[in-house]
Order: sequence, then C-alpha cells, then structure tokens
Amino acid sequence: MSVTTPDEWHARFDRLRSNKAFELLVVSIIVVSALLIGAKTYELSPVTTQVIVVLDWAVTFFFLAEITVRFLGEPDKKRFFRNGWNVFDTLIVVVSLIPIEDSEMALIGRLVRIFRVLRMVSIIPELRMLLNSLLAALPQLGYVMLMMFIIFYIYAAVGSNFFASINADLWGDIAVSMLTLFRVMTFEDWTDVMYETMSVYPLSWTYYLSFIFLSAFAFLNMIIGIVVNVLEEEHQRQAQEEARAAGEPTLKELQEEIRSLNTLLRQRLPG
Amino acid sequence: MSVTTPDEWHARFDRLRSNKAFELLVVSIIVVSALLIGAKTYELSPVTTQVIVVLDWAVTFFFLAEITVRFLGEPDKKRFFRNGWNVFDTLIVVVSLIPIEDSEMALIGRLVRIFRVLRMVSIIPELRMLLNSLLAALPQLGYVMLMMFIIFYIYAAVGSNFFASINADLWGDIAVSMLTLFRVMTFEDWTDVMYETMSVYPLSWTYYLSFIFLSAFAFLNMIIGIVVNVLEEEHQRQAQEEARAAGEPTLKELQEEIRSLNTLLRQRLPG
Amino acid sequence: MSVTTPDEWHARFDRLRSNKAFELLVVSIIVVSALLIGAKTYELSPVTTQVIVVLDWAVTFFFLAEITVRFLGEPDKKRFFRNGWNVFDTLIVVVSLIPIEDSEMALIGRLVRIFRVLRMVSIIPELRMLLNSLLAALPQLGYVMLMMFIIFYIYAAVGSNFFASINADLWGDIAVSMLTLFRVMTFEDWTDVMYETMSVYPLSWTYYLSFIFLSAFAFLNMIIGIVVNVLEEEHQRQAQEEARAAGEPTLKELQEEIRSLNTLLRQRLPG
Amino acid sequence: MSVTTPDEWHARFDRLRSNKAFELLVVSIIVVSALLIGAKTYELSPVTTQVIVVLDWAVTFFFLAEITVRFLGEPDKKRFFRNGWNVFDTLIVVVSLIPIEDSEMALIGRLVRIFRVLRMVSIIPELRMLLNSLLAALPQLGYVMLMMFIIFYIYAAVGSNFFASINADLWGDIAVSMLTLFRVMTFEDWTDVMYETMSVYPLSWTYYLSFIFLSAFAFLNMIIGIVVNVLEEEHQRQAQEEARAAGEPTLKELQEEIRSLNTLLRQRLPG
Repeated sequence: MSVTTPDEWHARFDRLRSNKAFELLVVSIIVVSALLIGAKTYELSPVTTQVIVVLDWAVTFFFLAEITVRFLGEPDKKRFFRNGWNVFDTLIVVVSLIPIEDSEMALIGRLVRIFRVLRMVSIIPELRMLLNSLLAALPQLGYVMLMMFIIFYIYAAVGSNFFASINADLWGDIAVSMLTLFRVMTFEDWTDVMYETMSVYPLSWTYYLSFIFLSAFAFLNMIIGIVVNVLEEEHQRQAQEEARAAGEPTLKELQEEIRSLNTLLRQRLPG
Repeated sequence: MSVTTPDEWHARFDRLRSNKAFELLVVSIIVVSALLIGAKTYELSPVTTQVIVVLDWAVTFFFLAEITVRFLGEPDKKRFFRNGWNVFDTLIVVVSLIPIEDSEMALIGRLVRIFRVLRMVSIIPELRMLLNSLLAALPQLGYVMLMMFIIFYIYAAVGSNFFASINADLWGDIAVSMLTLFRVMTFEDWTDVMYETMSVYPLSWTYYLSFIFLSAFAFLNMIIGIVVNVLEEEHQRQAQEEARAAGEPTLKELQEEIRSLNTLLRQRLPG
Repeated sequence: MSVTTPDEWHARFDRLRSNKAFELLVVSIIVVSALLIGAKTYELSPVTTQVIVVLDWAVTFFFLAEITVRFLGEPDKKRFFRNGWNVFDTLIVVVSLIPIEDSEMALIGRLVRIFRVLRMVSIIPELRMLLNSLLAALPQLGYVMLMMFIIFYIYAAVGSNFFASINADLWGDIAVSMLTLFRVMTFEDWTDVMYETMSVYPLSWTYYLSFIFLSAFAFLNMIIGIVVNVLEEEHQRQAQEEARAAGEPTLKELQEEIRSLNTLLRQRLPG
Repeated sequence: MSVTTPDEWHARFDRLRSNKAFELLVVSIIVVSALLIGAKTYELSPVTTQVIVVLDWAVTFFFLAEITVRFLGEPDKKRFFRNGWNVFDTLIVVVSLIPIEDSEMALIGRLVRIFRVLRMVSIIPELRMLLNSLLAALPQLGYVMLMMFIIFYIYAAVGSNFFASINADLWGDIAVSMLTLFRVMTFEDWTDVMYETMSVYPLSWTYYLSFIFLSAFAFLNMIIGIVVNVLEEEHQRQAQEEARAAGEPTLKELQEEIRSLNTLLRQRLPG
C-alpha cells in the first residue's frame, strides 16, 4: 500500500493544480499582492504598515505553498524547470523568502515583490499567449532593428562631433547623442534642440529633417512588416479552416475526377 | 367600438414615430438644444439668458412629448425599456424635469442638458451603428488592455519606489505614477521627467526607454488586432455577397456534377 | 471658305492645347510664378522688387493667353465652365487682372497670386487624380466626422461649464474649449492643461483620459475605415484585371460545360 | 604555367571573398571601426587617443586590403564599379587614406570615418535588401511628395505674407515658414505658434487646423499607398508560390480537359 502513496499524492496535487477554484484563489492572491505593492507607495499609519507587512509574508508563504503543490503535482520533475515560467515563479518566491536588512539588498527585495505582479501573466493562459506572440514577433524584426541602430549610431556620431561644443548635455558623447536623437524621433521639444544648433550651423535643420524622415520611414517599414506577417498567417490559418469546414475539393481533385472520366470513356467506348 | 380605440391610438403613434418629417423635427430640436448649451457658455445679456431658459424648457417638454409618443406607439411596453437607448432618453428627460436650485444639484442638471446632445446618436441609425461597432471592438481587446494595465502597474510601482523622493508631484504614489507614465506614453514633455530622475539615477533612461518600447509594442499589437479582425469580417462578408450575386457554384457542387456523370457512364456504357 | 475658318482655329487651338511642349511651358511658368511668390517673402533691393513686379504681370498675361487658348480650343463652350478646374483657373486670372491699391483688397490680390501654385494640380493629371481620390474619401467618412464632432461638442460643453473659472483663455466659451480639446488630442502640452484643472478638481484627469481614449478610438476607426475601403477597391480592380488577363473561365462556365456533357450523354447513350 | 597564374589568383581571391570566416572578420572590423568612432566622442587620456589613432589606421589598411581582394577576385573588372556599393566602399577607403591636416578638411575626414559604419549595410545582404526595398518604395510616392510640397509651399507663402510682422523668427521668409509648418505638422509646441498669431488675427486657428487636416490626410494617403503596394506584391508572390507548391491546375486547364471529353464523346458516340 505504501508504494502507491506517492502516486496518490501526485494525483491529489495534480487535481488541486488543475482545479478552477484553486486557480481563481491564486489569481486573487496575486491581485492582493499587487494591491499591497500599490498601498505601500502611500503614506500609511504605523498600524496599517504592520498589517501590510503581515499580509506580505502571508502572500509569500501562500506562493511558496502553491509552487510546492505545482512541483509535487508534476509527474516529470525535470520538465518542471524547463518551463521558463516555473523558473521565474520559483526565483520570485525564493528571493522573497531571504530576510534582507541591508538597504542595497532591501531594494532588490522591493523589486522582487513588484515583479510578483508578473505572475498574473504566468497564471492566465491568454496573457501568456499574448506575451509569447509579442516575443515571437521580435526576432523577425531583428534586421530592421539593426538598421535603425546603424542610422541612430551614424547620426549620433555626426551630432556629437559637430554639436558637442554647443550643448554638452545633449551632444556630449555618442550615448547622450543617441538619447537626444530618440527624443527628436518622439518629436519631444525637438525644435528647441534644432534652433540651438541652427544658431551656430544655420543648415543643421537638414540634419534633423533627414533623421526624422529616415527613422520614420524605417519605423513605418517595421510596422508594415509586422502587419503583413500577421495578416499572412491569419489568412493561411483561415483558408485552411474554411477548406476543412466546407469539405471543398481542391482543383487538383476535380482534375483527377475528370481524367478518370476520360479514361473510362476511352476504355469502354468503341474507338 | 371602444375596444378598438387603444389600437387606433397605437397605430397613430406608430405612424408618427416612423414619420420621416417627425424624425427630422426631432433632429432639429436636438440641434437647437445643442446650440443652447453652447450659447450658455458665452456671456449673455439678461434678456438673452431669459430667452434661453424658456427655449430650454420648450426643448425639455418637446422631448417629454416625443418619448411619450414613442412609448405609446410601442406595442410591447416591456420591450421598450429593454432598449438601452430608450432608458437613456427617458432618464435624460426625467432628470431635466426635476426643478433643482441647490448648487450641487444644479451641476447635475447642467450635465444632463449637455448629455442631451447624445440623443443625436440615439436618433440617427448610422451613428448608432458606429457606436455599436466601437463598443463591439472593446471586449476582444480585453486581454491586451489587462496586459497594458499590468505593464503600467509594474512600472508605476517601480517608479514610485525609486523616484518619489525626487519629485513627489509626479511619482508620489502609484496612482500619480500611472498618470505620469501615461504622459510619458503620449511623449508629452517626457524628457523633462527623465532628465530630472537621471540627475539622481543616471541609468534611469533605461526605465523610460523600455517602458516606451513595451507600451508602444503592446499598443501596436492592439491596433493590428483590430485591423485584422475588421479586415477578416469585411473579407468574409464580401466573399459571401460575391458568391450570392454571381450565382457561382462551389467546387463541391462541380465535383458532384462530375461524379454524377461518372455514375451515368458506368451504368449506361457496356463494361 | 470663310465658313471653315472658325473650325480651323478650333483645330489649331486644340492642337496647341494638347501639345506636350506647350504643357511643359505652362508647368514651367507656374513654377516661375511659385518662385516669384517665394522671392517676395524675402527682403529685396528696389531693383529686384521692380523685376518681380514685371515678371508677375508677364505671368498673369501668359495665364490669360493660356486660358483663352484653352477656351477657344474647346468645341463645346458650355462644357468648359462645367469643369471646376477651368472655373478655378479663370477666376485666378481674372482677379489677378484687377488693379488693386486698397490695402484690404491688396491682401486678396496677394492671396490670389499664391493660389496660382494650385494650377500645378490642375495641369498635372496625376496630381488631379490624387486630389480627386482625397476628395472621394471624404464623404464616406461623414458619419465618423459627425461622431467626432459630437464627442468634441459634449466634452467642450462640460469643459467650459466646469473649467471656465480656472482658465478663461482655454475654457472661456465652447469654441475656445473645442480648440483646447483639439490641442489635447494632439498631445500638445496637454498635461499643463490637466495639472491646472486638477489643482481645483483633483479627479479631472478622468475627463482628459476618457477624452483621449474616445477620440483616439474614433480616429483609429476612421483610419481603418479608409484602409478597408482602399484595400477592397484595390482587391476588386485587381481580381477583375487578373480574370481578364488570364482568360480564365468562371466556375459557372465550367459548370455549364459539365452539364452540356451530361445532356449529351443522356441523349446519345442508350438508356 | 605562367598563363594560368592570374586565374589561380582570381580563384583564390574569389574563394577568400566568399569565405564565411572572412565575411565575419570584415563585419568585426566594421564593428571595431564603429566603436572607435563612438570612443572618440568621449574625453580620453592621451595614451588612449594614441591607441585609437593607431587602430584607426589599422582599420583603414584592413579596408584597403579587403577592397583590393574583392577587386582582384572579380572576374569582370568593369562590372565591379557598376555596383554602387563597391564605388561607395572604394570612395570611403580612398578618402580615409588622404592625410588631412587642415581643420576644414579634417571635418570631412571625420565624416568619412563615420560613414564607414554604413559598410555594415554593404556587407550584410539582409540589410542591403532592406535598404533597396526602402529606396524602391520612394519613387512611387513621388506625386504624393509633390502634392505635400505644394501644400507646404502655399501655406508657407500665406504664413509669411500674414505672420512675418508678428514673429520674423518663425515666419520671416518662405523657407523659415516651411520649417515652422513642419514643426506644426509634428505637433511640436504648435499651439504656442498659433496663440501668438491668434492675438493679431483671431481667426488664424483656421489656418493651422486646415493645414493639420490636409497634411495628416495626405500623409495617411501616402502610408496607405505603401501598405497597399506591399500587401499586393506579397499577395501575388504568395499566390504564385502556393500554386507552384500544390501543383494545382488552373480553371482554364480544367475547362480544356472537360472540352476534350466533350469532343471525345461527340466523335465516338453514335449521333
């Protein structure tokens, strides 16, 4: 009998893990933990602060219990840590458990508590899918990103070579220049930056206008790239679904049926 | 004879309700009521103010009459209040009728008079369709909205933890921080916000840039989601219309006709 | 012989009108007239000013000659003024001819000379097509425009009712409020406007955020509407072209051919 | 034997040129050259400056060697300079080699070293394709660009005629006015510009609003034009690929097969 006990436990934990009510409880606890994080940003009475600290530990221990249940419910222990979200959840719980007093480390403790909100994404399948689709779109944009980086780098190099003496805060070195160019790209007080350099180099408006056109065009190209990809996938998925749903034959199948007719006629009809 | 009287009344009100001229009159009165609202925002002579007050009551009573006609013209009284627009219209009229002197309540009275302009949407079918399509697009965006809220919440929590001591007006608590982040997302003087925190944390530009990228990407995803949905529906609707209009057979129908030929040949031709 | 003379003149003017070299000359003169307009905005020596005045009159008389040629070359004089561009060209030329000294009228004279640049659009067919497609897209957006106007009007009415006492320059009356709201919609220093009203009504951020969401959503809807329309027309046009080019039969034609086969078999084969 | 030597050299250089490891080395050297450019924008110790100068020359000589290899590896010397990228690479290397002391010329030397980063585009095929697709999209937008220029020119002419006396910095002449209008188009503090002119011409808001609408509409049209073109090409390419991959017959081929059946039946069946 004792041999079946671990299996029984597995089954129990697995049932609990897949239980809708349990999932809802986990989501509620994450929401509570998010509200605690929000509450801590307000000035609070000492009593409330105490309550929050207690609730904070309660949340931490609930998360510890939940991840233990999920781990014990997993039949294949190795697969558990192959899932990035499980690793993320475990890390968040383990770091929350370390008692930290040092001010430097306390900062990390606070950050970890904030990242608990991301557990919402790990627990709700729709959000996980959304994040995955966002991440999946990134690599195909790799070359456009590289292109934009090259444009930024060249303009930043030109900018810091020519304008560093005009305003060192904006054009002091290449890193600061790239930040300034990002600002110009978002149109954030970009004319102030331009008028300043135009007082020394009257033709420097060409620098800004060409940069805005180039970056806008590259950005547009990136967006169109995403849209085309998304529409294409959507189109293919839809076409396949329609074909399956309607039980429509392909043109090739039609052709084969006509050909078999032809063969039949040639065989049976007197030449 | 007296038995048919209510039915006669129904028919009369129903005719009036569907009358094009009556509809035009209602639209004109709504326009007048909108102009009255606009006029009241200017400084006026006492005489004009008096005229406006009288016209205002005239509009209110016309609206009361109109809704009564619509109510009496409706054969099924229960269905009348199932329509959200009817409830809205009735509420607007009823609240306008309450004589309010108290300054607090007078404010509500003024607001209700402004919302009368929305009756334009309830009376013109094309606008009602437009609003419905706007509302229909919202729920499918639910998870993207939740995702964006989580991004905002995490960044706001980080922001108010680190930057509250730098500028309490912008980062004082989590609510104010979220407003500041919305401002950053609209690129509204976001560099002023950034330069302020960069003077304390020189690497805080990573915070702003990562936020802008994440929110822009999520926003883009939302827009693409809407566009794909709209195009898909449009495409399906159009394909169905075309098929119906042209009387085109489906490939399946062609297949069946070829097969019947085949059967015919097999039956009649000597093997 | 004298009977055919007007016809000969017609033919000559018509040839001149359709002459490629003449068209190029007209375009060059329009470019010259545009450059004159640009030159006049700089401070010039008295001699240059004199030269410009002379050139200006030369351009005016050339335009007069050109429109006369076009008018005389037109076989059907009535149709000439049915074309909006001909009316526009004639008006521009006629008003340029009136000698105006009065400062008020001189302003109109200057404006008319500027609008001559628009003759570029009337003379280049591609630009005329572009403008026509822009104008053609407008009416289908009519209801979205009306919807946006209603949103603006309601928010402007609310804004001038509540915020007029805070800043009369921004919220003084409904017209000024609508301009302020347009500014908010373009994200132009909208937080300055918001922070000002938030110091009196702390919850007024809801007013701005809801307005931004509503107007952005309506705007998005408008853009999607245009894109869907354009893509649809493009798609139809392309499908028709493809069908014609390839000489592809429709499915219906195929069906009819299969049916004729069926009939043939039924007639000729012994039942 | 000596006859084959040049061919052997050709083959060797050609192998080297196409070698993946060599390509990677070239990319690395370009990255090093880019980092040198970035490093020079920071304040450096004299030793570091010396190191950078040496590395700079090393990069220049490596580029010289690399282009020589590419040139010698090319079988058809004439075709080498027909490729725009080869001309660009050669120019960059040759100008880098000229020792320049004069401050005016030194500037050009610095610029040329910055443009070396663009060699990244010439060496990575995916970036070259991306740039080509960007350039290919430009000409089809020619007429929209011309249209936008005409809109800008007319508004700038009107602006500098009316507003030059209000603010010469913004509306002094037609060139400055066009820059101001570009600023208005990017919504950059455009209300400051507007409020200034509204204090003299209260109705000048119509000027700004009509300009914003026109330019936004023309811009939108441009974007839609690009999107439609891209989607169309994508669609065609995809349709052709699908057709090839599936070996699907066209409707015309099906029609021909049915017709041959018909002919067969008519010939062999007794009338």
